Order: sequence, then structure tokens, then C-alpha cells
Amino acid sequence: MTSLRGRSIGPVHDNGANMLYQHGTLAQLVPGLLEGTTTIGELRRHGDTGIGTGEGLDGELIMLDGHAWKVGADGQAIEVPDDFTLPFATVHRAAFQFQCARDDIGLEDLNARIVEANGRANTFFSVIVRGRFSFMKTRAVVKQKAPYPPLEAVADRQAMFLAHDVTGTMLGYFTPPMFNGAAVAGFHEHFLSDDRSMGGHILDAVLEHGEVLSQVFDTLVQHLPVDDPEYRRHDFGGDRIAEAIARAEH
Amino acid sequence: MTSLRGRSIGPVHDNGANMLYQHGTLAQLVPGLLEGTTTIGELRRHGDTGIGTGEGLDGELIMLDGHAWKVGADGQAIEVPDDFTLPFATVHRAAFQFQCARDDIGLEDLNARIVEANGRANTFFSVIVRGRFSFMKTRAVVKQKAPYPPLEAVADRQAMFLAHDVTGTMLGYFTPPMFNGAAVAGFHEHFLSDDRSMGGHILDAVLEHGEVLSQVFDTLVQHLPVDDPEYRRHDFGGDRIAEAIARAEH
Repeated sequence: MTSLRGRSIGPVHDNGANMLYQHGTLAQLVPGLLEGTTTIGELRRHGDTGIGTGEGLDGELIMLDGHAWKVGADGQAIEVPDDFTLPFATVHRAAFQFQCARDDIGLEDLNARIVEANGRANTFFSVIVRGRFSFMKTRAVVKQKAPYPPLEAVADRQAMFLAHDVTGTMLGYFTPPMFNGAAVAGFHEHFLSDDRSMGGHILDAVLEHGEVLSQVFDTLVQHLPVDDPEYRRHDFGGDRIAEAIARAEH
Repeated sequence: MTSLRGRSIGPVHDNGANMLYQHGTLAQLVPGLLEGTTTIGELRRHGDTGIGTGEGLDGELIMLDGHAWKVGADGQAIEVPDDFTLPFATVHRAAFQFQCARDDIGLEDLNARIVEANGRANTFFSVIVRGRFSFMKTRAVVKQKAPYPPLEAVADRQAMFLAHDVTGTMLGYFTPPMFNGAAVAGFHEHFLSDDRSMGGHILDAVLEHGEVLSQVFDTLVQHLPVDDPEYRRHDFGGDRIAEAIARAEH
């Protein structure tokens, strides 16, 4: 028997910085299962930091230091209350480690370097970048009403925002390719400017100067809305999830 | 805002009957990442019931009432100690609910009825069948030595066992198609005869008479061996995981 290299976590009881909590799956959004099945208050029991979207794709959410901000179709960030509901969200308890400072680097390069520094693409991790961005391009989806349309139809209705020389926080999660569908394989990153005037789902960015911090998780706690009858009876067989995610989220 | 249909779980602290704990992923076995990265003792902190395989594909494991049994290439079941290591295992805290009694039903029909009774195929759940099987066909993989071969090569070296009129326990887990790769989409079922003389990974079976019990989970706790350097640096890009799982596990 060889040595026990992979150290196991303690019991699930600790709910510590090694765990990423996800409610719902990105795959649910593809056919339009957009009902809010968790709340900000509930999510806060699992973390103080995260991203998500509201019921009916009501904006792009970002949670920082326990405060949840929503960027809607007008581009402004507003803080949302504890009873705000979401179909899909990813949160964790922040314990980021400083990774490096970076200057004048585009989003794609930055993401590639972060994966490299992490060794490989087989672990869930979070990345946070605080700094000044010479360019930031984001989008926010537009809230839909039930009966909800599929994700691709909504992606066509998104609002886009551009900013230059904006100071703020980029928060993202990396999902190993094996878990594509549960989340977006690769990075899923949201932004919030320090003055709350700009934010959303990041489409492109150039970091002028900033600090990169990351946090690796050994555990994904994947919570599913098993009591939602629409989720329970949906047949995902015809949704071509991977293709739809690739088109709608990148 | 519509009603909050999907009831969220409490904090992860409770570690209750709503949670399925998985260490490692089935995808890791495909390229031969077979090092034992957890132990029976560690798994028992997360459940009393489960299935798995030992380091180097050392047999087919089944845990019932906190006791872990291994069926190796000789077909016999032996109880394994707390320090027995595993690359992949799924466990939970048993709180099964009686579903139905069944007579004279083949495995495929039985599984189809169980999914039907559960509403749809979008939740993780466990099923346990205790009874008399008029036919039981199982296999056990043969323990490999490092450097480990890929799963498909090992599947060719498996031992197969047939039994008629055998009394015992079938324990299985159902994984929604979206999580194929993390586990086997659909059912993954192991067997242990009451006299411990026969068991393993179920290939086919006919239930003569037995009770079917099931337990639905709203949460998958997916633990990854993030400190195993081989796991961390492996490139899963060329492994064609879904195809390999379909061939090796069914």
C-alpha cells in the first residue's frame, strides 16, 4: 500500500474554506428552469463570497464580504435583501491566498496564468482580482417572466456595458471540464466596480494593475432543487446542454 | 416573485440523510489514477452505507451498516479494516424509505421502475434491495500494480461470477446524466450475499422476491484528491471519459 498522499478533509461539519457550495446547476438555465429555489439568506449560511443570477435571470449577482449586489439591465449595482431568490448560485467562505500582482494583462492571458499557477485544470477554485482595469466589458441578462424562455433566447436580449479605467473587483470560479453542465467548465467571472456604477458577467477585460488571489477547494457541495416539480420532471435529454452553455456563457 | 418551492437544506453542518458523499470521480479511473486517496475510516465519517473500489482497483467494495466488505477476484467477500485505501467511493448515512415489494423482475425493468417512482432522472438517490435473487451475475476487477493501466485494459481482466437462488443485498446509486464522469450516469450497483460467499459489481440480475427501498439526496458532497500530484497534473482532455465509462461499467 502506498502512502496516503491525498489528505482527506475533516467531516463535512466544518463547512470551511475548503468547500465550494453550489445551488442548482447551470444546465437548469438552458431549458429555462429559472424559478428562484434558494435565497441570499440561505446562501449566506454557506459563504460570504459568490456569484449567481436571480429568479427569471434577474441580473448578475456578486456577493462580497457577505453583501450581495445585483447588476441589472440598467448596469447599476443595487444591494439585494436576504429574501431575494435565485435559481443558480455559487458561494464560499473567503480565505483567499495572495498569488501575484499583474500589470497590463488581458483576461484570457490572466486566466491561463491562473490555471498554470494552480498546477492543472482538475480542481475547483475561486479567483479574486482587485485593481484597476483599463478595459472592462460586461453583460447583464434581462429579467424574464414565467413561462420562462430557454437561455439562448434570453442571451440575445442581454444588455452590454463597457468601461475604461475602472477600479473594482473581479470574482470568478473555475470548474474542471468534467463538471461542465453543473457549472461552466473553465472560468465564470463577475465584476463590481468600487463605486457600484458598473458590473455584471465579464465578457472581456484588461487588467491595468491589480492583485490576484486564489482559493482552491477540495470539495464541491452541490445542492439540487429536488422539491421543485418542474426540475424534477424535466427531461434534459434534448437540451444539448454543453453546446448551449458554450454559446450563451462565453 | 413566486413561492419558494425548492426547500433549501440547512447548513452543511448537519451532514444528514439528505447528503451523498463521494470521494474521487469515476473519470479518474479511466486513465488509471488508481492510488488510494481516502480510507474506509475516513469514509465512515460521512456515512455507514456505500460502494467503491480499492487502490489499484482492489476489488468491489460494499459498505452496509458501517461494515465494509471487499469482493476480490476469488469472489469471496472479506471485511476490510479502517486503513484500507480507495481512489473512488460513494457513501451516505442510511435512511431508506420503503418503496415497494417486487417479484420476478429483471434488473433493467427494476431500475426503470425505480426511476419512474422517483419522478424523473434529475436527482441523486440510493436504492437498496433485500431479497432472494433467482439469478445474479457480478464481476470483480483484479488488483493492479503501479504504474496503473487504464480502466479499459483492466476491465478485460475482470473475474465474473454467477449465482442462482441467492439471498442478499443489492445497493446502488443513481447519478443524473448531467454528472456523468463524476460517477456513472444512471445506476451503479453492487451486491453482497447474506452468507458473504458471493458479491461484486452487478452486471445482471433477476429478483425473485424482495423489498425495494430508496433514499433521495438533495446534496452531492464531491470531494476531490486535490493534493494528489498525479491527479492534479493529469490532462483528462484525451481520455474520452464518457465512452470509456460506458464500455467499462455496463
